[in-house]
Amino acid sequence: MSGDEASDERLERQLGFLLEIDRLKGVQRRSYLVDGSRRENSAEHSWHVALMALVLAEYADEDLDPMRAVCMMLLHDVVEIDAGDTFRYDDAGARDQAQRERLAADRLYALLPGEQGRRLRELWQEFEARESPEARFAAAVDRLLPLLQNAATEGRTWREHGVRADQVLAKNAPIADGSKRLWELARRRIRAAVEAGHLAPADPSRTSAEGR
Amino acid sequence: MSGDEASDERLERQLGFLLEIDRLKGVQRRSYLVDGSRRENSAEHSWHVALMALVLAEYADEDLDPMRAVCMMLLHDVVEIDAGDTFRYDDAGARDQAQRERLAADRLYALLPGEQGRRLRELWQEFEARESPEARFAAAVDRLLPLLQNAATEGRTWREHGVRADQVLAKNAPIADGSKRLWELARRRIRAAVEAGHLAPADPSRTSAEGR
Repeated sequence: MSGDEASDERLERQLGFLLEIDRLKGVQRRSYLVDGSRRENSAEHSWHVALMALVLAEYADEDLDPMRAVCMMLLHDVVEIDAGDTFRYDDAGARDQAQRERLAADRLYALLPGEQGRRLRELWQEFEARESPEARFAAAVDRLLPLLQNAATEGRTWREHGVRADQVLAKNAPIADGSKRLWELARRRIRAAVEAGHLAPADPSRTSAEGR
Repeated sequence: MSGDEASDERLERQLGFLLEIDRLKGVQRRSYLVDGSRRENSAEHSWHVALMALVLAEYADEDLDPMRAVCMMLLHDVVEIDAGDTFRYDDAGARDQAQRERLAADRLYALLPGEQGRRLRELWQEFEARESPEARFAAAVDRLLPLLQNAATEGRTWREHGVRADQVLAKNAPIADGSKRLWELARRRIRAAVEAGHLAPADPSRTSAEGR
């Protein structure tokens, strides 16, 4: 293979990946747009949290490279093209979520040239593991946005799925690992939603979670 | 105002901006998803070109910071919330596009705290002016994606709007200012679309544009 052919093949693989990920626009999430007109898809959600990571980077508790968090946000849901979106309150779906997403990553990142595919996949895995400052902050932002969308739509997704305040507190507690300030904000919004009747109060048998 | 109050106000302004830009998900573009199921919106388009800038950064002709180009892509269409999407082949709409978008930027970036709003607005203006390496590369990527989407859907948007090859070549020529390699690819895709009958050939009176 000549250098030209290798270089053509590299670009064609990159374009193949970029056309394949168009399908993320067809993956529906449970969250609604702020105007309530429809549920959002994972591609537009990814744009929104990427910009959110950029705008709110100053609230990260650890020193970090905000642009790495932005890249994580751009990539974080690509596996959903094969694995589908798993609702954060779907404990049954969560059981095999990691395996489904690993298989999806095997296929999707392999569409790219070898070293580039590995690099982007590693960034996604770093996000999933939440073991770096960027990953902890990205995880916080990824949770905060749907919470704000819920707060802005009178708790529409929460109400549709019968989610209670103790569950919202428990599932969103990782926000505290990325930003104490944003977690404080999230808890304020959760309390306000309960007071407004947009979110069912904690199950009395589990109120200990509310103290987190 | 106490320090706490100033800091609360800052965060609330940032959240106000982040909720307002949710409306970009409701701005329809002329391009179709690769699977042809529907037209895409400007928020999911912004995600797609941001990731495209990341994956294809190696083809930029000038030294650049790929992450600045990614940020430009995240922000580049935010003004469409007020100004609407202007189809690249709509010469009438193009006449007052700059003014509509300037007014939109006045309102939208002013939602953010002062210095942050100015910084992000400047990045958008830099993109619009195409006077930096990052802006030229971002402009190339922003044109290349709809071209690839058209090529993947048998020229659907081109055919719906009666666009000809000479117009596609002329409107996409700025790709060459960001990346000769991507412009060569674009021209190949345009030629192939004409040969396949998915794009009307150049108006005979304007074939000189094809030589660019």
